[in-house]
Amino acid sequence: MAETNKGRSEEEVARAFVNHYYHLFDNDRSSLSTLYNPTSLLTFEGQKIYGVEDIFNKLKQLPFDQCRHLISTVDSQPSSMAGGCGGILVFVSGSIQLHGEDHPLRFSQTFHLVPLPQGSFFIQNEMFRLNYG
Amino acid sequence: MAETNKGRSEEEVARAFVNHYYHLFDNDRSSLSTLYNPTSLLTFEGQKIYGVEDIFNKLKQLPFDQCRHLISTVDSQPSSMAGGCGGILVFVSGSIQLHGEDHPLRFSQTFHLVPLPQGSFFIQNEMFRLNYG
Repeated sequence: MAETNKGRSEEEVARAFVNHYYHLFDNDRSSLSTLYNPTSLLTFEGQKIYGVEDIFNKLKQLPFDQCRHLISTVDSQPSSMAGGCGGILVFVSGSIQLHGEDHPLRFSQTFHLVPLPQGSFFIQNEMFRLNYG
Repeated sequence: MAETNKGRSEEEVARAFVNHYYHLFDNDRSSLSTLYNPTSLLTFEGQKIYGVEDIFNKLKQLPFDQCRHLISTVDSQPSSMAGGCGGILVFVSGSIQLHGEDHPLRFSQTFHLVPLPQGSFFIQNEMFRLNYG
């Protein structure tokens, strides 16, 4: 992500990340690949996908083109209190409105953001689940 | 948790942790405090709680006594690929059946488990949300 971490709380970083991520997802999905690194891991509905290229292909091939995310909650925490890597955990709940479908689908999603030397973050970990029932 | 990490994949650790955590939650909730450390963070329905004692008090004071968790999905990933702390992210979805209530409540929960020198893990991060709608 383009923003830097200078002087911002993890809540501010998390909120900015969430806005940025879902804006790209809904409007320019191929640009999401800029948020990942070669070590990134995505688990999408139980399927594990490793690295920028395979994650990009997975996102590109999802069986829907147009969608709109509605975010209900954003929780965040530093991923280590003891001089760790400065990562941030972000836990999102919300719903996805797919184009042409009557009812939105509930989902939950977890991200682990890890800082880069220049002050921006990449997605080290991401796990997505639809919430059925 | 009592188990060690010797030779186990993060999926095996995650599954064992999930079984252990929800068994304690449903049968001996006060014992959950053994899973936390002074640096632990719990975000419960948006409320942030820090450290073993306050987390213990929060869990003890939840407005229901008897409950049963039904786990739908367990996803897990190492929290760092690049020689990090050896942590494991665990992402759970399921439902809670409260005693005397007709309908179970859907929930999602994220844990970040961090290893201790003796090979067990503690909960560094935990975030819980009911999934309404």
